[in-house]
Amino acid sequence: MNIKDALERLKAKDAEVVRLGQIIALLEWDQETYMPEDASKERAAQTALLAGMRHERIIDAEWSDLFSAVGIGEEGALNESSAPNPQAADSADSAGEVGAAFFREVHKRWKKAVNVPKKLVEDLARETSLSQSAWVNSRKNDDYDSFAPHLATVIELEKEYAAAVSPEGDIYDTLLDDYEPGARGDQLSVLFDELLKGLNPILESILSRPAVSAPFLNQSYPIDKQDIFGKRIQEFMGFDAKRGRLDLSAHPFTTTLGPDDIRVTTRYDERNVFSGLFSNIHEAGHGLYEQGMGLSVRGTTLADGAGLGIHESQSRFWENIVGRSRAFWDFWFHDFTTLFPDCLEGVGVEDFYRAVNIVRPSLIRVDADEVTYSYHIIIRFRLERALISGDLTVDDLPGAWRESYKKYLGIEPMNDADGCLQDVHWSCGLLGYFPTYALGNLYAAQFANAMEKEIGSLDDVFRRGDSGAVLGWLRREIHEHGRIHTPENLCRRVTGDSVNPTFFLDYLRTKYRAG
Amino acid sequence: MNIKDALERLKAKDAEVVRLGQIIALLEWDQETYMPEDASKERAAQTALLAGMRHERIIDAEWSDLFSAVGIGEEGALNESSAPNPQAADSADSAGEVGAAFFREVHKRWKKAVNVPKKLVEDLARETSLSQSAWVNSRKNDDYDSFAPHLATVIELEKEYAAAVSPEGDIYDTLLDDYEPGARGDQLSVLFDELLKGLNPILESILSRPAVSAPFLNQSYPIDKQDIFGKRIQEFMGFDAKRGRLDLSAHPFTTTLGPDDIRVTTRYDERNVFSGLFSNIHEAGHGLYEQGMGLSVRGTTLADGAGLGIHESQSRFWENIVGRSRAFWDFWFHDFTTLFPDCLEGVGVEDFYRAVNIVRPSLIRVDADEVTYSYHIIIRFRLERALISGDLTVDDLPGAWRESYKKYLGIEPMNDADGCLQDVHWSCGLLGYFPTYALGNLYAAQFANAMEKEIGSLDDVFRRGDSGAVLGWLRREIHEHGRIHTPENLCRRVTGDSVNPTFFLDYLRTKYRAG
Repeated sequence: MNIKDALERLKAKDAEVVRLGQIIALLEWDQETYMPEDASKERAAQTALLAGMRHERIIDAEWSDLFSAVGIGEEGALNESSAPNPQAADSADSAGEVGAAFFREVHKRWKKAVNVPKKLVEDLARETSLSQSAWVNSRKNDDYDSFAPHLATVIELEKEYAAAVSPEGDIYDTLLDDYEPGARGDQLSVLFDELLKGLNPILESILSRPAVSAPFLNQSYPIDKQDIFGKRIQEFMGFDAKRGRLDLSAHPFTTTLGPDDIRVTTRYDERNVFSGLFSNIHEAGHGLYEQGMGLSVRGTTLADGAGLGIHESQSRFWENIVGRSRAFWDFWFHDFTTLFPDCLEGVGVEDFYRAVNIVRPSLIRVDADEVTYSYHIIIRFRLERALISGDLTVDDLPGAWRESYKKYLGIEPMNDADGCLQDVHWSCGLLGYFPTYALGNLYAAQFANAMEKEIGSLDDVFRRGDSGAVLGWLRREIHEHGRIHTPENLCRRVTGDSVNPTFFLDYLRTKYRAG
Repeated sequence: MNIKDALERLKAKDAEVVRLGQIIALLEWDQETYMPEDASKERAAQTALLAGMRHERIIDAEWSDLFSAVGIGEEGALNESSAPNPQAADSADSAGEVGAAFFREVHKRWKKAVNVPKKLVEDLARETSLSQSAWVNSRKNDDYDSFAPHLATVIELEKEYAAAVSPEGDIYDTLLDDYEPGARGDQLSVLFDELLKGLNPILESILSRPAVSAPFLNQSYPIDKQDIFGKRIQEFMGFDAKRGRLDLSAHPFTTTLGPDDIRVTTRYDERNVFSGLFSNIHEAGHGLYEQGMGLSVRGTTLADGAGLGIHESQSRFWENIVGRSRAFWDFWFHDFTTLFPDCLEGVGVEDFYRAVNIVRPSLIRVDADEVTYSYHIIIRFRLERALISGDLTVDDLPGAWRESYKKYLGIEPMNDADGCLQDVHWSCGLLGYFPTYALGNLYAAQFANAMEKEIGSLDDVFRRGDSGAVLGWLRREIHEHGRIHTPENLCRRVTGDSVNPTFFLDYLRTKYRAG
């Protein structure tokens, strides 16, 4: 087979894998939004059928022939003898960056999948499914003991998985790589220590002040109006309703059903107007990233976030740096009060701004403010590394959790349901996932700093109620590239530096006049 | 391979084909309900990908080996040497009916698919897609000439398809078999002549009376209340909201996404309250059939209507025989007026009953009343048979259409958009489909007659606001069996007779005191 034909075939096979993934995403989206109650068992079978068909296509024997024909070696890079390969690049890709990234990602997906024995794939699917069900019950009944053996099994299987994918590699780093490509546990550990050192005085300083009181938050905010405002803000951000939509689900999420079909979800609570509002902004931030994928990556495996940390940076940027800024509310507060006049009588924009930025140590990660959020992540990061290395046993997890919260945030859960059972992640085998949430905050602040150098003060932009320049910058610098660049490389290209806590800490210090 | 293993494998392969079909149904349901505007091109590619994968599974080489191993001969029946085959039947299937039907249907699906050359499958997919687009435009611009060549191509391809499926068979009968298994054009022709002979005096008699006037129909009926009433009626009928749901779409339809996931759609028009109301009842009638599939057929190719005529009988029974009956409204009218007090001031149940039963020859099939509806179908049936046989050319279709309407209904369309361009069916290659709509009316009346012999007068039942006995009878006699029986056999089992117009004509004569 000549190189040109092999390349076409590689692209066609990748497109099919991507397309099947998007059909699976529709099955899952429907399950969370509209599917009738009794359909869940059959839906699981439908999803499993397609996931199996997709897996077969990822590992079939043709790939290695095609890699040879195109001249792709062990690490997914073109062999020297075949590089530079003009056919690898399309005409818009003069540097060959897109072609090289395509080979890297397709090869990586294949290699990970072929190295994992079928039995392990099946064991993981079955055990994580059982473990999730056990988690639901154990959390409901605050009964950690019934979950512990499942967690132990999942951890062992995840370790087996990592060893199969990368026999020589560090177990935790291999797991991490599925979520934050190229990241390493020891580097993150150093990064998070630095972050913590900066956060502590900021938090202390904030907590030394009188607590902010905002009785208007206890009012009842009609859900239809919350939805109107949410859609208005998403439109303002640039979320294209012809290429996506907003629905309701128990847990907000963003998913991609096709290049022009990006769906975000939210949930509204009449008694907690911020819950839906910031979910709308957060998910639309993710949605903009997906809608912004450039023509050179669309429909391929490169049409995806560079990593979950970068993806989270897009949601956090809009949710916190924009959506919790004074400038944003200087523009939008009038509109907001017009929708909820009864709830906000006598409330000024400064009161409102203070209310959206209340900082308070709390037990539940998903309710945390932007200052304390990182503590929740750092606690989980340290505990999951210890669980993987064997330094911490599953039986000792609840105690270690309580100690950590006591140590870092000065509070302690009264039960495991509000403690180590609060998150679904570990029960699904998502070990190595949590750090990306904290990285998202760091990337967001670092990107915002770079952005301001180009387009000027964000406060000025948002006080004018203008999002065009911001979205333009995000698209050009980040969205369009999909996962052409690794997170590390993307961050360097955009900001001239590796990810580091300086910008996030500076942002917090300025905003809270603290630390 | 022993018989038992071969049988298990057959069942597993069938389950996969069924499941893929239901995933395709989700893609299509989503396209008609929630999919964002710009996603249609990619959605077409996703649907095509899965349809291709499903087709591959229907025709793969394993089937004929399995048929041999189980002992299935040419027509999908067990060979004498292997019958009776105890493994073919599960324990609930003592007569072996389910097993035999399963073999018949799986074999038929395979045989039809393997006999059609791949090129013809692709030609049909491409040309019907082009033809549908051409139809949309030609209808919009009332420009039949731009559609005619596409229609000619589709007819030729449908003829090729029929010849490939059944080289010895009658072309029209082969096409018909895809929608009404076992039906024959010449028999339908006789049946429809008889129907017509009975309908003419009924229609004449009705038209000789003063026209019914119902000014309250021109009021504005709030859509949220139409939706409340529609859901209430669907619940009353027995449509299970835990195993299905109601959504909005441009054209109402029912689709099956899984054994416990039956979705119906409707559309509401503030100025036409009957449009949504009778769509809700009609589609829930289809939905009940799908929700009622018995345990012995669930998840297999037998979990489907016996044919489209039988399927339509379920929707027509509820829509017309129940939903347009005086007894039904004696019970529901109070509830209805409570929802729309402004629209129905001074209107009595008799006025309302007359309004839901206005009979008037009209040009558009989907707006037709239950008396004139069959004329629309008979016209189409005769024209499509003539198009297939070559007695009518595509160029002469518009004229023949006008003549037919003049002859049968005494009215003539002013343009082709309201004439031979009004239906999408032929543009998609659905030739042989129309007769099932008229058969639905006949089956419905014939079933209702049999039902009343067992459970007593339907009027009594519905005047009490009770649907349990009716649904119970439908489930036991029709729904549970899926397509175990052919339409002909099912009709005989349930009513003791072949389908015939007597019951429908009697029903109309009694209801309209006419003919």
